[in-house]
Amino acid sequence: MKEELLNQLNEVYSEASEAEKKTIEELINAILRKQKNENSSYLSEILQAKGRFIDNHYEITIPNSEIIQNSLNIVHGGITATLIDSAMGGLVFELLPEHQAAVTTELKVNYLAPGIGSSLTCIATLINKGTNLIVTEGKVYRDDGKLMAHATGSFYIIKRKK
Amino acid sequence: MKEELLNQLNEVYSEASEAEKKTIEELINAILRKQKNENSSYLSEILQAKGRFIDNHYEITIPNSEIIQNSLNIVHGGITATLIDSAMGGLVFELLPEHQAAVTTELKVNYLAPGIGSSLTCIATLINKGTNLIVTEGKVYRDDGKLMAHATGSFYIIKRKK
Amino acid sequence: MKEELLNQLNEVYSEASEAEKKTIEELINAILRKQKNENSSYLSEILQAKGRFIDNHYEITIPNSEIIQNSLNIVHGGITATLIDSAMGGLVFELLPEHQAAVTTELKVNYLAPGIGSSLTCIATLINKGTNLIVTEGKVYRDDGKLMAHATGSFYIIKRKK
Amino acid sequence: MKEELLNQLNEVYSEASEAEKKTIEELINAILRKQKNENSSYLSEILQAKGRFIDNHYEITIPNSEIIQNSLNIVHGGITATLIDSAMGGLVFELLPEHQAAVTTELKVNYLAPGIGSSLTCIATLINKGTNLIVTEGKVYRDDGKLMAHATGSFYIIKRKK
Repeated sequence: MKEELLNQLNEVYSEASEAEKKTIEELINAILRKQKNENSSYLSEILQAKGRFIDNHYEITIPNSEIIQNSLNIVHGGITATLIDSAMGGLVFELLPEHQAAVTTELKVNYLAPGIGSSLTCIATLINKGTNLIVTEGKVYRDDGKLMAHATGSFYIIKRKK
Repeated sequence: MKEELLNQLNEVYSEASEAEKKTIEELINAILRKQKNENSSYLSEILQAKGRFIDNHYEITIPNSEIIQNSLNIVHGGITATLIDSAMGGLVFELLPEHQAAVTTELKVNYLAPGIGSSLTCIATLINKGTNLIVTEGKVYRDDGKLMAHATGSFYIIKRKK
Repeated sequence: MKEELLNQLNEVYSEASEAEKKTIEELINAILRKQKNENSSYLSEILQAKGRFIDNHYEITIPNSEIIQNSLNIVHGGITATLIDSAMGGLVFELLPEHQAAVTTELKVNYLAPGIGSSLTCIATLINKGTNLIVTEGKVYRDDGKLMAHATGSFYIIKRKK
Repeated sequence: MKEELLNQLNEVYSEASEAEKKTIEELINAILRKQKNENSSYLSEILQAKGRFIDNHYEITIPNSEIIQNSLNIVHGGITATLIDSAMGGLVFELLPEHQAAVTTELKVNYLAPGIGSSLTCIATLINKGTNLIVTEGKVYRDDGKLMAHATGSFYIIKRKK
């Protein structure tokens, strides 16, 4: 690593508050996880997204942290959309046979409550599977159980590249 | 900084490809910029978002990098939404008097083309300013000029906290 | 009634097919019902909309007929939207106290299957009731049970005019 | 025509106010026009929709009348959606070659101002023409020039039936 960059990181870290130290450590850990897992992406490691398919729905939980917040310390609406699109995409992946994939064609999100608390969970379910289009629903809950966003999204089915 | 974490970062970096080294450096630089600028956010520094209000529209450009891509190396649809929501929010901020702010109530994005190329630019314009709701339009262009996403979003006007 | 118009109606009717006769009779009956019921509207009488609030949802059924179809004899997408907006509006009316009313601020419909069969039923349910905005969901079913459209819509709460 | 129905229509008409007489005449004229024009639909005749393709956009104007209003004498949001879907559909028809048609897959409308005045005009323009999906924009203006609704809608391209 470039010596200078490393030194700067060290210096910035040593002067940071405890909260900021935690955030910096989270970002460095995201880099480390990504380098160890080729199939992952920086974005999912930064978000610390944990997903699973269960009972016909796809569920992703991410911890809340300063990394995903806007300057008012509310989770950025775009990150909520990222969580939703990822959960819907995870659902669609599970529903399609191996030779098919799908791309998001449209997504609409209604924001219902501020994104606060310790974590956000999106649950994606199927609305309709057509020949060419799959329509899904996503609901995002805070850890206090409050529904904070509701979304619908469409995916266009394509052949999977090998 | 915890010695162990720093050593791991050093090790991972030294074994990384040139492209990965660049990505890791970008993330560390984002951390450094955020620590130097209290009014910024990790997210906007990670996205390297550069915004400006000009000629009644708000414009944000972000470079494309592996950080914002899905596992197929296409810009994640949620990041496109983040770019759009940020540009619309920037526009709304410019249009409101000092004692008012606004929160996103709904956002709809149509994805028109894959997010590839060297950068993405979102241009947000006003559709309607009502007493309580502001409706905006966002268009995202790739650096080759292709329109890759179109969006409309609504913002609810609130009193600004001091 | 202007003699001429009446004579033309008579003539057109006598030359019409049995199916067309039925449609013409339906339209005349809608006029008659509207004149007898001041609180109704031409549109709801033309659609023959029958609504009710039950178990926390609002439900409207309309018969399918040539009156609401496009030139391909599929129910017009705008009529499906009319059915949805009416059912959502009926739900919102039930949920608000007497001194409040609400206006639609946005509506998004996903069309999932062709509007065919003998009738369409929309079921509107609550997604979230906020201080100023109410977000609702609408599902439209054909009489064969097929989900033909899914929608979400937002309503802004206002004071009811006396 | 069944004598009884005709007599009732006559009676209701003779007792109606001048405004109601005008509305009843409009509905009867819609029936007459539909019977004379096989390619038309009851709905477009009831709305008195006049459309044209000019300068790469499609434009439809409809007169405002009690027929399309809700019980508060505002144009029903579903009729606005019908106008928009019709104009978008007209645009798509013009843009496609003879062997193709298209069906609406999703429509989102933002309602910006009450539907009042003497007429409504929707102007539909192209946002993007992809291989399988066409995305369009619709703007509805009142006769006083006020933008009353903004919409985006997607159409899936199919083979035209002969």
